[in-house]
Amino acid sequence: MKTQVAIIGAGPSGLLLGQLLHHQGIDTVIVEAKSADYVLGRIRAGVLEQGMVNLLREAKAGARMDREGHVHEGFSLAFAGRRERIDLKQLTGGKTVMVYGQTEVTRDLMQQRAECGATTIYEAADVALHDIYSDKPRVSFVKDGEKVELECDYIAGCDGFHGVSRKSVPADAIRTFERVYPFGWLGILSHTPPVDHELIYANHERGFALCSMRSDTLSRYYVQCSLDDRVEDWSDDRFWEELKRRLPEDAAARLVTGPSIEKSIAPLRSFVAEPMKFGNLFLVGDAAHIVPPTGAKGLNLAASDVATLYQVMRRRYQDGRRDLLEKYSDICLRRIWKAERFSWWMTSLLHKFGDDAFAQRIQLAELDYYTGSPAGRTTIAENYVGLPYEPVE
Amino acid sequence: MKTQVAIIGAGPSGLLLGQLLHHQGIDTVIVEAKSADYVLGRIRAGVLEQGMVNLLREAKAGARMDREGHVHEGFSLAFAGRRERIDLKQLTGGKTVMVYGQTEVTRDLMQQRAECGATTIYEAADVALHDIYSDKPRVSFVKDGEKVELECDYIAGCDGFHGVSRKSVPADAIRTFERVYPFGWLGILSHTPPVDHELIYANHERGFALCSMRSDTLSRYYVQCSLDDRVEDWSDDRFWEELKRRLPEDAAARLVTGPSIEKSIAPLRSFVAEPMKFGNLFLVGDAAHIVPPTGAKGLNLAASDVATLYQVMRRRYQDGRRDLLEKYSDICLRRIWKAERFSWWMTSLLHKFGDDAFAQRIQLAELDYYTGSPAGRTTIAENYVGLPYEPVE
Repeated sequence: MKTQVAIIGAGPSGLLLGQLLHHQGIDTVIVEAKSADYVLGRIRAGVLEQGMVNLLREAKAGARMDREGHVHEGFSLAFAGRRERIDLKQLTGGKTVMVYGQTEVTRDLMQQRAECGATTIYEAADVALHDIYSDKPRVSFVKDGEKVELECDYIAGCDGFHGVSRKSVPADAIRTFERVYPFGWLGILSHTPPVDHELIYANHERGFALCSMRSDTLSRYYVQCSLDDRVEDWSDDRFWEELKRRLPEDAAARLVTGPSIEKSIAPLRSFVAEPMKFGNLFLVGDAAHIVPPTGAKGLNLAASDVATLYQVMRRRYQDGRRDLLEKYSDICLRRIWKAERFSWWMTSLLHKFGDDAFAQRIQLAELDYYTGSPAGRTTIAENYVGLPYEPVE
Repeated sequence: MKTQVAIIGAGPSGLLLGQLLHHQGIDTVIVEAKSADYVLGRIRAGVLEQGMVNLLREAKAGARMDREGHVHEGFSLAFAGRRERIDLKQLTGGKTVMVYGQTEVTRDLMQQRAECGATTIYEAADVALHDIYSDKPRVSFVKDGEKVELECDYIAGCDGFHGVSRKSVPADAIRTFERVYPFGWLGILSHTPPVDHELIYANHERGFALCSMRSDTLSRYYVQCSLDDRVEDWSDDRFWEELKRRLPEDAAARLVTGPSIEKSIAPLRSFVAEPMKFGNLFLVGDAAHIVPPTGAKGLNLAASDVATLYQVMRRRYQDGRRDLLEKYSDICLRRIWKAERFSWWMTSLLHKFGDDAFAQRIQLAELDYYTGSPAGRTTIAENYVGLPYEPVE
């Protein structure tokens, strides 16, 4: 079996890269360890930056998003009994974000891929990468009991933090940076109307809370919890009660509660691997870096890696530009570290970190300063809608 | 002995408050534990915000500053081999800072006070505050072996972090917030031309460095050092060598070295006491709050407290407005916490904190983002020149 670019992982990054390359006449095969249904069952992010929205349109997978997604022109920060709106559109010269679930993005990309006839191999067992430093890298896997060898020019590792791609790199070729946060997010999904038409991020003395949504009838809420907590410790009633206590009064009064249809606890982590290219293997998205979810940068950061690798590959195949291959890491990492910074900052700003009274006052002073200054609000807004993609040249 | 406002401490805050009130016809007596020469011997800050410059002019103590001080329209941040200028004037719509030593400010205020004939009692021993919660507060002290009682309407505690004023408050009436940093600043003063006409703040893998100055022939330099270091460990040669290693290449090449005329190690601390009014005692400046020196906010923050207390007292005596007395703390603290935040942030951004590789990359990403974004640069500039004084009403 042979292709130009072997893509490991059929999550949104791998699928998006596949479609973008397909429309440029570059052949790809996607190899995914899980089933399509398993991939679609993962509840993840739901806020898309303008850059990712544009990429989905370029991949011809944006039609349903444009029909059903919700454009958000702002969000709120709640703290100290106040609620301050960040007017994204006004502060960034017209930029907005799109609320549209990662599951839907993935579904749309899967459908496009099926329609164009490109190969995706689901439930591939024992996926392994070979000879990544040679001119003839290979991917091997077992499908339906049979061993398959996939020859390719390049491998794109889009298989997430726990995937095989990063683990295939020699330990001494990679440097990692990590921060683990001393709390988790307890999230629920519920068929209730969202408490507000925009997101609310709340700093509260009892801990962080976030009001998000997937649609007019599907809400997504989170509260900061202990890493020792188990989902079973949190009845729906306890969750709703805790959420209400952390929201501004007007929001708490409007909150509509109902049974949860999903409930889970996620840890928060910052992680970066450097570099992101190893011979002819290119790491993309979560395979190379993780952000805590505060600020909704995870999926969007994967999309900007995809945008970079897409341009690198397009110019490699169409213009014979091999020099750009060597620049992939540096181009990606500059934007990645800025998004890591913003995610770390939003996390530091909004969560309760123990009982350090000085740190708590500094949080409130930061919120007071940043929401009170036009320049401060602009820094939040321009990061939230997504910093510009770095040029590939 | 009797006055309207008893001022404890003849540093720049107490003297500035005294002169401002004097010109409004409000009588003050300043009580200072040390001699005038001792006060003048303390080497301190040298960067004055526009607000403080205006206050000094209003106190009729700005003439020499306007002649001899240096207006700075920008400063530089050095990191990762780069040097990025923050153009204060352009980013803040014309605001600048004035480089003029605290010693000179104090000297000018002392001279004005002497000329106007107001009473300053130096070398007052055993200073004590009495009946601060009554209508008739008193200050007692021993001068030339004789016990003196000073009756007053109000006491302004301008006697610094270690002074008697804050210590006179009942422990259960005050709440304190504190952060101690795990390093110090080793500073030297030297009769050499400054390496640059503007200040350079350097983030370096060996630790922070700062190039500052008092005049065209008097330089003030600092390097981050260990709290275990003693001044005797640092010969002039060792200091210059270490400073050079931490500066951008072009600056290191231009550095003119020479014998130090002062050399000292200072710890870095953030501290805030709340509230700042206790009956008829008002804490001002360092008596209520300390910032680390990164960002040059200490003296300027004292000046904004002085501005607030000056307006409160003026309207108390001229308009009979007693309600503003009760607002003093809240008016001061909102700006204080923002300056505490900026000082903490500049300190966090520029110093080496152990060997946390993630934290180091976040520092560089912050520097890259904030210096690269017009909004980011504006947040730095507007804080550096000084946030607006809060209205007194």
